Amino acid sequence: MKNIKVIAFDADDTLFINETYFAETEEKFCCLMSDYLSNQGISKELFRIEIENLKLYGYGIKGYILSMIEAAMSISNNTLPVEIIEKIIQYGKELLEKPIVLLEGVEETLSALHGKFKLVVATKGDLLDQRRKLHNSGLGIYFHHIEVMSDKQEIDYSDLIKRLEIQPEEFFMIGNSLKSDVLPVLAIGGHAVHIPFHTTWAHEKIDHKVEHENFRTYEKIIDVLGRLQV
Amino acid sequence: MKNIKVIAFDADDTLFINETYFAETEEKFCCLMSDYLSNQGISKELFRIEIENLKLYGYGIKGYILSMIEAAMSISNNTLPVEIIEKIIQYGKELLEKPIVLLEGVEETLSALHGKFKLVVATKGDLLDQRRKLHNSGLGIYFHHIEVMSDKQEIDYSDLIKRLEIQPEEFFMIGNSLKSDVLPVLAIGGHAVHIPFHTTWAHEKIDHKVEHENFRTYEKIIDVLGRLQV
Repeated sequence: MKNIKVIAFDADDTLFINETYFAETEEKFCCLMSDYLSNQGISKELFRIEIENLKLYGYGIKGYILSMIEAAMSISNNTLPVEIIEKIIQYGKELLEKPIVLLEGVEETLSALHGKFKLVVATKGDLLDQRRKLHNSGLGIYFHHIEVMSDKQEIDYSDLIKRLEIQPEEFFMIGNSLKSDVLPVLAIGGHAVHIPFHTTWAHEKIDHKVEHENFRTYEKIIDVLGRLQV
Repeated sequence: MKNIKVIAFDADDTLFINETYFAETEEKFCCLMSDYLSNQGISKELFRIEIENLKLYGYGIKGYILSMIEAAMSISNNTLPVEIIEKIIQYGKELLEKPIVLLEGVEETLSALHGKFKLVVATKGDLLDQRRKLHNSGLGIYFHHIEVMSDKQEIDYSDLIKRLEIQPEEFFMIGNSLKSDVLPVLAIGGHAVHIPFHTTWAHEKIDHKVEHENFRTYEKIIDVLGRLQV
């Protein structure tokens, strides 16, 4: 661990709560549409449309709002009252303004690493949204900058490392998604730590175990300090 | 001009056509809503909602689609048929998939500067959208990376320069907006060139003349080569 230069943190559900808020919003959306379909059917259609729109909209809340609107029209066969769309936009704006709740040990971890490594945020979300969260959380002071990634595949991490002007083995990623924060980083020769969050979006799930010398799973983010010999 | 290390290019309406497509979309939107209000009234209400939503949605097409939907509901007093919202989403998706039309001299300019300076794209748009445009335009090969900025005010350029690890006087910005690409860059001690585009979004307009030793206006982007002594 002596050669690490940059430590990148995923933001949502690694630094602060996110998926919980999406789940709450989806619950409200299902309730709004309950005249038309079962909750399960609504969630299934929303997920289908979200994935279909990913290539065009990318990740983040604005695309999610647009997908909810599209799902509502599809589920109701265009018979829904316009007020429902007004409600969806309102839910979306509320989601953008949710309070920031830091996860356990985040501030202590960042404080211990600050000054010893270059710390960045590496996120797929909207820049404006992530910047607001970092600012409001008070965590902004620990980070050199935010790296917005259009996706978190191998090519995106290779681009990131090129942009940071470091070698893959000097890169250390911490996140809650094995699929997005761990596997592609290991594949290009970087280091990764997985801190599971209790809720994972279906799109981020993988069904096999990860074993690799550059990889560890910890229950709490503070445990990463031992790994980094801080 | 000997100390310049990084040249940043605005993307939309500096490298390729953008505002023209927004104007076309707005025209179609006005046509869609023409039962409710005059074109002028529709545009005014859309602009009001866009600006109101900027702090929450930021720049880019997804926020624009959401603002069109909100404007349509407001203009019709929630009496519009749902099919209109379906149309708006369709217009938005079409806007995201418009062909890339390079502006005159862009490729020659980039080709002449490539290898002599670090070239980056500095944009307020969505990362995914800008990446797609750069990739499809074939211009991707000339750029070191894309810098997505949540806004283009002085603080955002200061952040950018910190991230690039250079001094303000080593930074050279080229763009079509005096307000976003020129004034804040000059204010922090950088260099800027203005290449006007025939259409400017109302939000980007300023009403005074800019004079500064670090500033030039050129009609064509290729003229920047002389300024940079290439």
